[in-house]
Amino acid sequence: MVNRNCRATLRLVTLINRQGHPHPPLSSSPSGIDACWKQLQRNNVHGEHKIVSFFSPLASSLKTRQWGVNIQSRCYGSASVLVQRNPKFSKLNDEDVRYFEGILGAKNVIQDDEKLITANTDWMRKYKGSSKLLLQPRTTDQVSEILKYCNFRCLAVVPQGGNTGLVGGSVPVFDEVVVSLSAMSKIISFDKVSGILVCEAGCILENIISFLDNEGFIMPLDLGAKGSCQIGGNVSTNAGGLRLLRYGSLHGNVLGIEAVLADGTVLDMLKTLRKDNTGYDLKHLFIGSEGSLGIVTKVSILTPPKLSSVNVAFLACKDYSSCQKLLQEARRKLGEILSAFEFLDSNAMNLVLNHLEGARNPLPTSLHNFYVLIETTGSDESSDKQKLEAFLLGSMENELISDGALAQDINQASSFWLLREGIPEALMRAGAVYKYDLSIPVEKMYNLVEEMRSRLGNDANVVGYGHLGDGNLHLNVSTPQYDDKILSQIEPFVYEWTSKHHGSISAEHGLGLMKANKIFYSKSPETVKVMTSIKKLLDPNHILNPYKVLPCSSIS
Amino acid sequence: MVNRNCRATLRLVTLINRQGHPHPPLSSSPSGIDACWKQLQRNNVHGEHKIVSFFSPLASSLKTRQWGVNIQSRCYGSASVLVQRNPKFSKLNDEDVRYFEGILGAKNVIQDDEKLITANTDWMRKYKGSSKLLLQPRTTDQVSEILKYCNFRCLAVVPQGGNTGLVGGSVPVFDEVVVSLSAMSKIISFDKVSGILVCEAGCILENIISFLDNEGFIMPLDLGAKGSCQIGGNVSTNAGGLRLLRYGSLHGNVLGIEAVLADGTVLDMLKTLRKDNTGYDLKHLFIGSEGSLGIVTKVSILTPPKLSSVNVAFLACKDYSSCQKLLQEARRKLGEILSAFEFLDSNAMNLVLNHLEGARNPLPTSLHNFYVLIETTGSDESSDKQKLEAFLLGSMENELISDGALAQDINQASSFWLLREGIPEALMRAGAVYKYDLSIPVEKMYNLVEEMRSRLGNDANVVGYGHLGDGNLHLNVSTPQYDDKILSQIEPFVYEWTSKHHGSISAEHGLGLMKANKIFYSKSPETVKVMTSIKKLLDPNHILNPYKVLPCSSIS
Repeated sequence: MVNRNCRATLRLVTLINRQGHPHPPLSSSPSGIDACWKQLQRNNVHGEHKIVSFFSPLASSLKTRQWGVNIQSRCYGSASVLVQRNPKFSKLNDEDVRYFEGILGAKNVIQDDEKLITANTDWMRKYKGSSKLLLQPRTTDQVSEILKYCNFRCLAVVPQGGNTGLVGGSVPVFDEVVVSLSAMSKIISFDKVSGILVCEAGCILENIISFLDNEGFIMPLDLGAKGSCQIGGNVSTNAGGLRLLRYGSLHGNVLGIEAVLADGTVLDMLKTLRKDNTGYDLKHLFIGSEGSLGIVTKVSILTPPKLSSVNVAFLACKDYSSCQKLLQEARRKLGEILSAFEFLDSNAMNLVLNHLEGARNPLPTSLHNFYVLIETTGSDESSDKQKLEAFLLGSMENELISDGALAQDINQASSFWLLREGIPEALMRAGAVYKYDLSIPVEKMYNLVEEMRSRLGNDANVVGYGHLGDGNLHLNVSTPQYDDKILSQIEPFVYEWTSKHHGSISAEHGLGLMKANKIFYSKSPETVKVMTSIKKLLDPNHILNPYKVLPCSSIS
Repeated sequence: MVNRNCRATLRLVTLINRQGHPHPPLSSSPSGIDACWKQLQRNNVHGEHKIVSFFSPLASSLKTRQWGVNIQSRCYGSASVLVQRNPKFSKLNDEDVRYFEGILGAKNVIQDDEKLITANTDWMRKYKGSSKLLLQPRTTDQVSEILKYCNFRCLAVVPQGGNTGLVGGSVPVFDEVVVSLSAMSKIISFDKVSGILVCEAGCILENIISFLDNEGFIMPLDLGAKGSCQIGGNVSTNAGGLRLLRYGSLHGNVLGIEAVLADGTVLDMLKTLRKDNTGYDLKHLFIGSEGSLGIVTKVSILTPPKLSSVNVAFLACKDYSSCQKLLQEARRKLGEILSAFEFLDSNAMNLVLNHLEGARNPLPTSLHNFYVLIETTGSDESSDKQKLEAFLLGSMENELISDGALAQDINQASSFWLLREGIPEALMRAGAVYKYDLSIPVEKMYNLVEEMRSRLGNDANVVGYGHLGDGNLHLNVSTPQYDDKILSQIEPFVYEWTSKHHGSISAEHGLGLMKANKIFYSKSPETVKVMTSIKKLLDPNHILNPYKVLPCSSIS
């Protein structure tokens, strides 16, 4: 039967540019961190994003415990893994500081306690190190000199970009020297014919986006943290973000990098070519290795031209199967202009409507089981309009969508995006939240939400939403207060389920310190063994970002 | 001034599917090889595709020369590099054969001379090995057992797919055991929602394309050799092909692989996820490493939905600068539907019109300096038509194109493609040809053609064409007969020029045996050193595809 009830709701408009995603602003200032900390104190966050290390009671009790001479320990995460300072690492001395001053000049060798707090603390204040030294090189040669010396002296190093990571990858665990790339922020070249940009690693993503906007191009990568995160960090963590569905991952878009190895060797792989089949493509080792194999100092990246026509639709589906079929249809019918396909379930919708200021349901006649946000981006306003309208009408006739609305203007588009992007904030306002960022084959993705719901019964509100187009599920469990019993019902079940269904326990955040010991849920022992061999090959003293990415047991 | 002269020429039609690219059919049958050989005898091919090894006089004189006990040598390429059999490798004995028969069954252990000829010879008959054994495993476990044994016995191995490579990477150099993946040709799974295909390495590309076509999807990779080449070989050589401009390289599209290391370890990296940030993404090491780090046994790949509307335009430009600007405009105006942007200069056009049967100039009023072929692929016939027409009219008004024609039907589209794809055949018919497949930043790409032209004067016809959208230049020098003096004017100049302009000496063919010793023109010594270390780490006995990819000097 043809459903034409909501035809009147469909109003097609073209948006020149979508902006104003309600991501929390990032600030590295003490006041920004304090505000964030107060917020976190009001809203305990548990599970994947649990406040651990120096904020958790267990961590507090353990953080000064001694493990023999010069060995400190600290406890992180629900599995209570003890991280032990590697006793092979030297302790910083005055001579080291003088050496670095000789390379960088005194003003780029920071020992001031106030300034070190920022470098030692991640922006969510989940992790805190105790580094006594922050270095700010301005050239690749300086990075090389620093690492050469640190390797010789066996001083551990944490490379740091915008410090916006979510898994404790960008802050020291103990007293590692912080090497910040912030002062290397030049755009080196841009080729308007090919759209290839070359820049230093410390360029802030938003600055690159602005630069490209003036040139009529866009970054194939966009993140909520764009105001603070740096391209070197993006590359080192293989950041995903909002445009992955359309433009693919950084493994496809990054054409070249320059990286400095632990021994100071500069690897010039800074090609600006789409095709280059001359030997092993080593740059991919550094994309997503979270600074543990080398420090990325320069990047070349392929950027697509800016397209002028953007449309956003907010749709309702009666079941998950319809969401999947709608995705299939959207890939086929919208194909080349589809730029986002996000979904949320009714629990997520209720939560955001109840807890987020300004959230308004554009389909208020009844509560539906699932909602889908579709965005198109194209070069021709009128043909894009026609294409999207035809797709939506066809989907209604096929009963894949039971209701829907099209944004009339940029404000309405932003209000649709708010419903999707406001969920994390709404969850935090609702009480304690156990958060999991998973990749699961689309067909099975929602089974996990349902199984978790039946597992937890009335004890918790299980919420499912995410980037359906990318197979990326954000599974969140919301409870009024944090409860160890709930956590034990979730973990390790959630990781085991994900592993059993060939998913990934970290879709886009990386492993960092938080999940280094959970790698086997997603990678085979043989694969981890090869990773470990490569780590030992490129960084035999393990000075680069120690205790992270790979399990402690494998690096000894 | 507005140029409307050729407006009448523009006739827009939609093509359901483009087929019939005039690539030579590949055949592994002796008669096919014989025909190919006769063709080659008629048309000497020199330079990058030069007939060397057992066909060249120098090679013939050297191929049986002894270098001490058990050392044979053979000469390849213009630089006359001697390849020496690694004396550490064992010689095959009867016990080895019996062992393999125990693993694979006698019928999958081939020793028959006739059958070995095909496995020992590349399809262009440029290279020929003298292997006495061809193994045809049917499972990953069998591949693992084979390699474990070969590693233990120090028997060298050549992994072989469709054997369609152009740089001697897929045939033995001496007596290496050939491990063919042809019998592993199952499609394992296909997820219609996400478009993710999982299959064995021996699947022939054309079979995958047909399978996907029935499912309403396409491969992000298409090659002239698709009737013979196998997906495992495509992945191992990071094949480029016709769809790279639109869908990017295999580093972006391959989601996972299974690979067997030299010691028989099976690395299961066969994820079917778009996002997975759990540790180093090792699959990229195997993409493009030409079987020298491991044998790819399974592949998972992201496939886009098939789009129904294809259009082809053949355009004329007055200079190279206009071609570049046209590319810029096409990226912007056609953006999401642009699927090919190819160019040829007037020398190439003349050559193809004079030497290729059936070639016809669709813009016959005058000979232009440059020609561009543009293809669009989209989901909506009528809007694609409008978009392309508007772009072409705008480009004529801006004087970026001076003439143009749009294909009316599939035959006309094929005839346009013939002009671009028939160039290699026309070059072979014209006499001797020195061929170079280079990646160069688009802005500088044509400078090399001009410099080469002024360098060679009237002695040769210098022809430039290629995938402008990918920055991939096919530089060809045509002369009536082969001449060492001409070659010495081209090489090493062409490699030095490419290197100086940060290009790549192998855009998509790989290094194989042919260019292993030329790697330093495109990669720094530090980078090659790391490649070599990784080779040693994963294949300490160097049994996998020896003498290839990396320079002999680095592997000792």
